[in-house]
Amino acid sequence: MDIDFLDAVRLPGEIKRMATDIRLKESLPALTERIVETYEECGGINHLGHSPLPSYREVVEVLADIREILYPGYGRRQNLHLGNVGYHVGDLIDSLHDRLTQQITRALRHDCKARDLETDFEAEAQAIAIRLLESLPDLRKTLADDVHAAFEGDPAAKNLDEILFCYPGVSAVTVFRIAHELFKLGVPLIPRMMTEYAHGKTGIDIHPGATIGARFFIDHGTGVVIGETTKIGEGVKIYQGVTLGALSFPRDENGNILRDHKRHPTIEDEVVIYANATILGGKTVIGHHSVVGSSAWITRSIAPYTTVTIENPRLRYRGTSDEANSDHFTALDYQI
Amino acid sequence: MDIDFLDAVRLPGEIKRMATDIRLKESLPALTERIVETYEECGGINHLGHSPLPSYREVVEVLADIREILYPGYGRRQNLHLGNVGYHVGDLIDSLHDRLTQQITRALRHDCKARDLETDFEAEAQAIAIRLLESLPDLRKTLADDVHAAFEGDPAAKNLDEILFCYPGVSAVTVFRIAHELFKLGVPLIPRMMTEYAHGKTGIDIHPGATIGARFFIDHGTGVVIGETTKIGEGVKIYQGVTLGALSFPRDENGNILRDHKRHPTIEDEVVIYANATILGGKTVIGHHSVVGSSAWITRSIAPYTTVTIENPRLRYRGTSDEANSDHFTALDYQI
Amino acid sequence: MDIDFLDAVRLPGEIKRMATDIRLKESLPALTERIVETYEECGGINHLGHSPLPSYREVVEVLADIREILYPGYGRRQNLHLGNVGYHVGDLIDSLHDRLTQQITRALRHDCKARDLETDFEAEAQAIAIRLLESLPDLRKTLADDVHAAFEGDPAAKNLDEILFCYPGVSAVTVFRIAHELFKLGVPLIPRMMTEYAHGKTGIDIHPGATIGARFFIDHGTGVVIGETTKIGEGVKIYQGVTLGALSFPRDENGNILRDHKRHPTIEDEVVIYANATILGGKTVIGHHSVVGSSAWITRSIAPYTTVTIENPRLRYRGTSDEANSDHFTALDYQI
Repeated sequence: MDIDFLDAVRLPGEIKRMATDIRLKESLPALTERIVETYEECGGINHLGHSPLPSYREVVEVLADIREILYPGYGRRQNLHLGNVGYHVGDLIDSLHDRLTQQITRALRHDCKARDLETDFEAEAQAIAIRLLESLPDLRKTLADDVHAAFEGDPAAKNLDEILFCYPGVSAVTVFRIAHELFKLGVPLIPRMMTEYAHGKTGIDIHPGATIGARFFIDHGTGVVIGETTKIGEGVKIYQGVTLGALSFPRDENGNILRDHKRHPTIEDEVVIYANATILGGKTVIGHHSVVGSSAWITRSIAPYTTVTIENPRLRYRGTSDEANSDHFTALDYQI
Repeated sequence: MDIDFLDAVRLPGEIKRMATDIRLKESLPALTERIVETYEECGGINHLGHSPLPSYREVVEVLADIREILYPGYGRRQNLHLGNVGYHVGDLIDSLHDRLTQQITRALRHDCKARDLETDFEAEAQAIAIRLLESLPDLRKTLADDVHAAFEGDPAAKNLDEILFCYPGVSAVTVFRIAHELFKLGVPLIPRMMTEYAHGKTGIDIHPGATIGARFFIDHGTGVVIGETTKIGEGVKIYQGVTLGALSFPRDENGNILRDHKRHPTIEDEVVIYANATILGGKTVIGHHSVVGSSAWITRSIAPYTTVTIENPRLRYRGTSDEANSDHFTALDYQI
Repeated sequence: MDIDFLDAVRLPGEIKRMATDIRLKESLPALTERIVETYEECGGINHLGHSPLPSYREVVEVLADIREILYPGYGRRQNLHLGNVGYHVGDLIDSLHDRLTQQITRALRHDCKARDLETDFEAEAQAIAIRLLESLPDLRKTLADDVHAAFEGDPAAKNLDEILFCYPGVSAVTVFRIAHELFKLGVPLIPRMMTEYAHGKTGIDIHPGATIGARFFIDHGTGVVIGETTKIGEGVKIYQGVTLGALSFPRDENGNILRDHKRHPTIEDEVVIYANATILGGKTVIGHHSVVGSSAWITRSIAPYTTVTIENPRLRYRGTSDEANSDHFTALDYQI
């Protein structure tokens, strides 16, 4: 790309621009060719000539429709009552059956390397889709308990409607519980797409493989990370910035990270974990009815009924009253 | 759901699939019925047969239109000038009047349990909608000061346009100030829907009930939580991950959490709070012109003109130079 | 606004409402005028009567189209194969050329205060747009390395498709690398719009001016902040909540913050930084092959091959077994 010659000619602006425009646009077909060549050179980040992958967009719409069934009257469709809601739900269920079957078929076929290529992926996908839809009545009961736990857990909440509209923890847990059903049914890829969608929306990152008991409540939630092999009991409450993570990854003799291994902690029933606490390790168990204080950092097990808090933090105070009119910022050693 | 029989017959794939398809889809109406039954069994998470709730989607569009009025030229509509902007704003105001009135009517009617059912909710909603619109000129002045404070507070900012386009703190504070007006006017639900929308977009969670003075700036902002009863003075600057939260919730004699109680701290004028600091408690006051260092954890009041930082952190260092070619990861006790 | 008179008359509800409606709506034109007046009074937060600014929406669509070229088969368009992908890419490249040229022209013209007003912004913008498009083949190679680094770095990842669909770190780094190309080409405003878009989507805030080497991986990512003058080597891995920030800002003799100054740390090759660690200061260097433990807080340089962790955290434990049936919450001194 060389426009120096044209600069030298000093044509009037607009003509010069058109000239460069034509000359430069001539380079685009060759550029396209060079890009397409990279699709053969560095594979792994393009998906060409295979049966299609699940569509992220379609998975997100499936989630929105399931949510419409789980919480009717809070979503798109308004003026629902017991006389018309059956039509609305029936229509959604029928459409979800077809779209879930299609997306799950794609996920299964894509993941079939280790499996019989003769498998009727579509029949299997359909059976899974129906299994998921059949779990919705029970899911509704579980989620109703989650929503009530949220209301009981936050003095700022005025009513259940506010919980359903305004609590990102409830959104994230709803998506997690749907994704976890698919995860248990052995569907690859789609459960993670679902929880990552929720992560993007709420800042709450729950792996669909985690096991989470009834009446779970996350308040505020931004920055929460709950790892794949975490086990959480009933009635647990956690706040923003809490990490339930892994210690160093065990590796095999070749130095490869061992996958499929309990790496994340166990949280027993009725535990409360305050903001920005970090709990690490697959053997770490937080005993039931314990309370983990804000910003605590824990890598060992805690007995039941224990309250763990960080020691009264040691802080440095420096008065600046005597230099009230000076720039007190520059007196500070470190800051962001 | 039983497809074992069909498996045994071993029909060719596609026919078998169609057969299962039909048989399985027959289960969908019964499933729909079971789901609808749960709408009667576990109420509280469905809204049927009542006057409609405020629409989250509509509330978000109202916010977008108000933003278009507050910052003309930075949003959807381009090529605005003083000759045509009046038409643009007049049109938006007229439409906002109608849509705000409708949404506020819904919120008031929904919340009317404790109120006179004879109330003319629509007239009340209209008065509130107009009150909100009439606050826009003053809001613009307040927000102009916020934007200038952001520019003065961040050396990476090149100009005010960058602040308006690229600073999530400015987006979140804009939404907060709109929502806070509605909160002061006694509108239920909608203010929280607004700030939760901003939370999802920016990771900054400000309760609409908080009181926040002029020239407020949040930089980066992900993970910031500002509780309902927080009071913030003028010229305050805070960074990502800062929590202004509550200590343990006081409860009444029956063990119920007491709502409507000052639970969150007071931050006086010209205070700076660096990243990931945590300040807790309704009686905690950070005196004016104080600086709270990064990652500090504070539950007691701080005098004016004080700099508070965490002690030089005690860290463990372990050289691994001698094992430079070994796997230095496995030498680490804990990590995520 | 005075509706007391109408309240006193006690007209039937609907008529009263219409009456207030008309009376109140009469105030809207005057309100529109007052708002427009503020566009002259407090400038800086409106953009009227000038050539248009870059459009945020258009910049986001440009990013989506570039992503479609970088990772074909993972986005909107499905059923691509080597026989048709050339048409798809050629069409996108042609359209991107025009739209990038338009947006960059706006950004350059807007920023031209200090520059020759005679400049042919459109020719310059076109040259930059083509330069960006020509960087795509190399960008694909860099991103393929990032994606492989992510797979190797996370035991929960099942395959590369999961990385591309479900890893917010990969999304944020993809946007950063595009934005950084434009930043190096001297384009104002648009690079920041791009990375701020990614920040909103992922909670990962990377300034487009940062320098980041090959095989970079951010896991989970919510709350990560990487400042403008940060330098990161090759093969670096960081986790959620990590801040690479500045110490106190140096100011000139008039107290103004000095812009354009190395304020953020240098991270050498093959460093791992675990969750919520904070590293501050322009002179702080983390030596190659070092490991920074979770929640560490560092303002001084670290030698190569060093492992730095926080001291075994001192925690306060308080058993509550003896009061198992009492309300153990109220026994806690502080919590959020």
